[in-house]
Amino acid sequence: MTDDRLKPVLDRIDDEMPAAQERLMEFLRIQSISTDPEYKGDTRRAAEWLAKDIEGLGLDEAGLRDTPGHPMVVGHGGPDGGAHLLFYGHYDVQPVDPLNLWDRDPFDPAIEETENGPVIRGRGASDDKGQLMTFVEACRAWVAVHGALPCRLTFFFEGEEESGSPSLIPFLEANREELQADVALICDTGMAAPGVPSIATQLRGMLKDEFTLHGPKLDLHSGHYGGPALNPLREISKIVASFHDETGRVAVEGFYEGVEEVPAELLAQWEDIGIDESAYLGHAGMSVAHGEAGYSALVQQWARPTLEINGMWGGYTGVGSKTVIPAEAHCKLTCRLVGQQDPAALRRAVRAHVEARLPQDASVEWKGELDGAPAAVFDTTRPEFTGAREALTEEWERDAVFTAMGGSIPVAGYFRQVLGMESMLIGFASEDDRIHSPNEKYDVAAFHRGTRSWARILAALSK
Amino acid sequence: MTDDRLKPVLDRIDDEMPAAQERLMEFLRIQSISTDPEYKGDTRRAAEWLAKDIEGLGLDEAGLRDTPGHPMVVGHGGPDGGAHLLFYGHYDVQPVDPLNLWDRDPFDPAIEETENGPVIRGRGASDDKGQLMTFVEACRAWVAVHGALPCRLTFFFEGEEESGSPSLIPFLEANREELQADVALICDTGMAAPGVPSIATQLRGMLKDEFTLHGPKLDLHSGHYGGPALNPLREISKIVASFHDETGRVAVEGFYEGVEEVPAELLAQWEDIGIDESAYLGHAGMSVAHGEAGYSALVQQWARPTLEINGMWGGYTGVGSKTVIPAEAHCKLTCRLVGQQDPAALRRAVRAHVEARLPQDASVEWKGELDGAPAAVFDTTRPEFTGAREALTEEWERDAVFTAMGGSIPVAGYFRQVLGMESMLIGFASEDDRIHSPNEKYDVAAFHRGTRSWARILAALSK
Repeated sequence: MTDDRLKPVLDRIDDEMPAAQERLMEFLRIQSISTDPEYKGDTRRAAEWLAKDIEGLGLDEAGLRDTPGHPMVVGHGGPDGGAHLLFYGHYDVQPVDPLNLWDRDPFDPAIEETENGPVIRGRGASDDKGQLMTFVEACRAWVAVHGALPCRLTFFFEGEEESGSPSLIPFLEANREELQADVALICDTGMAAPGVPSIATQLRGMLKDEFTLHGPKLDLHSGHYGGPALNPLREISKIVASFHDETGRVAVEGFYEGVEEVPAELLAQWEDIGIDESAYLGHAGMSVAHGEAGYSALVQQWARPTLEINGMWGGYTGVGSKTVIPAEAHCKLTCRLVGQQDPAALRRAVRAHVEARLPQDASVEWKGELDGAPAAVFDTTRPEFTGAREALTEEWERDAVFTAMGGSIPVAGYFRQVLGMESMLIGFASEDDRIHSPNEKYDVAAFHRGTRSWARILAALSK
Repeated sequence: MTDDRLKPVLDRIDDEMPAAQERLMEFLRIQSISTDPEYKGDTRRAAEWLAKDIEGLGLDEAGLRDTPGHPMVVGHGGPDGGAHLLFYGHYDVQPVDPLNLWDRDPFDPAIEETENGPVIRGRGASDDKGQLMTFVEACRAWVAVHGALPCRLTFFFEGEEESGSPSLIPFLEANREELQADVALICDTGMAAPGVPSIATQLRGMLKDEFTLHGPKLDLHSGHYGGPALNPLREISKIVASFHDETGRVAVEGFYEGVEEVPAELLAQWEDIGIDESAYLGHAGMSVAHGEAGYSALVQQWARPTLEINGMWGGYTGVGSKTVIPAEAHCKLTCRLVGQQDPAALRRAVRAHVEARLPQDASVEWKGELDGAPAAVFDTTRPEFTGAREALTEEWERDAVFTAMGGSIPVAGYFRQVLGMESMLIGFASEDDRIHSPNEKYDVAAFHRGTRSWARILAALSK
């Protein structure tokens, strides 16, 4: 640590931790489930809370920017003339069902002691309210100590990340000039292994689709029609079963166009991280990797494309039984994309696969969202990557690594595509944070050292 | 017609038709919806009306018999020493919602003219008040002409048929001796085609089961685990898809044990009925029969076993999308049984089929109901079947046929199982009677000729 500005900021962060946790709790209590229209008002309240909070950093301006969906929160501040960083996070959260699997009210967060240390438990604790607040708290400490931000900063928070970001591209397009910066910092990712600081440099892309398979024109009684009737549940199962071959490879024609093997050098770096694959699988109750034969669990997750069924339903789903042959069956699916896979071409390929398998008297209705995001691979030769890597290495006392991510951070693709801006993905989440699941948590240590990490990165990038 | 007793009875029935219709109307006005506790009093009033009405047949005794649910109506009368018949019907009716789809108050019945002749319109007109009154009116005419019933008769009416018959088996068990007769006559079925008198001589049995396929021990994020994760929706789809082969035959090992082909003679009878298969399929929006290749829609429905998926669900089923890999997936299934298929053996076979297809790390949890009912195939060589068939042939001036039913009439199974008594299923309903639906009706001609049919059957069986 050769930067004199830094030590008092880090001390301030340590001292302020209890207050910082309290602020996060307040933020977590707001039920900002963006995908459910019932929570529209709550989602806006989260935006208002956040705008008000960053206003306290002495910004030139900070406020809500309306969109056809949930509002963006945008703020600008700090001295001109040097580096200009944009920080991105999202203030919306995933739905909480199934509620009965939560051990506490998802929106009544608390610090809980666990055998791995204290955690902050609640929906959004990790994804992404806890993570985005690490950056905000680092800035708050910096301003408290030095009276101003270390460089020009643009804060940009979204409220639709968990519901497909429909307003994001139009907003970026309409505010192209205002949102320009040297590089975007995105805090919505995790560490590759416990204590291993990580910068994700490649992300899988995403394609979402949904279909209804229509069969009989009304629900039928299985006594009167069982036998002759087309059963949509049976047909949709046959289609879903046909999506993969017996080696776990996706059997949709043309699916692997644009997919390349991981370069040997990068693969060696990944293998050196020391990721415990059996612990990773075991955490989910699995003893083996169930993806494409011939690839490690890590490569299946980081660098291979997938076609997953996320929801399926039809017929009677209540208590007891009902002798019904339903008129329709439903399926929601997502694909994770890698390399040069083209979302539009893949959507056509998946739809053609389904349509080629429809029996007589059946029809399909597509309801999927129209946009998809290609995979993103970032330019790690930029100086910001070197600076951030060194800063993280100092804070965590362990070489920071360039990793990949199985998840998608579509915003990184959009920043590049619309603003011509590269992104650095630095986050402190753990594999066991249960994001998108019941009992989501964020380690108190991650919140604390994440905040300290950002202070170091701000120092490094504002030199 | 060689039975001198019959002609005056048939004449009496013809003369009395207006009064008989008036009695039926009165019965139909009573709102005996058994499934809805709000109509408990009305349901009892229907039982009281019916007990009073059959008392007028000069019975030794007739009255209500309380159960934990709605009362049974039981009556006995007629000379001892010869044949002893039991007649079964049910005085309760289906709910009437959606009320706005009715063209008239469902409990303000009326005769309406239609292009196919006059009908009695109202809830229960066909199912089962109109049908059961055909038998009562035949008896009334017989008693009016001859001063007594033609043979020993037991009347047995239920008020819970539309709500699962919870009191039926206990009542049969508690009154085993009292309810013994040579054969049961059940009037709750239809004619196989317009103008074709029918005796249903075989009914499919039923097996119900349900399972949950457990995969990961928690819901997973498809970015973090997509690829390596076992996806229960994909696995359950593969299992469901494996239940049938490409010819539509059930692929569960041992499934067809006890299944025999329909005898050529019976098949010829069925083909001679003149059932319009394309109209039957078209009603459900289908252009072809989707069951086992090589069998007609009729045989698929009446005489082939099925394995149907009645409900399936898992993952996210709400609005929008969620990138979840769920921890579990669910499936409800029913089998329709024929011939000598053994429900207990079939349950084991279906479960073994599923269990043999579980991938590593998956487990299955069974939740199905424990009881199943074998198919019922009645002994058509009994003299009652010959007599009834001849009687129906005379009345309808068309060969009566032995038919089958794809559905189940549980009471027939219970009569056999608890009382050791065979059943003859003879009814006069039409496919278009809209039973269980708005605008239920019963053809005036069915009511009239149905009554005459029972007079002839009584004559034949009491000779």
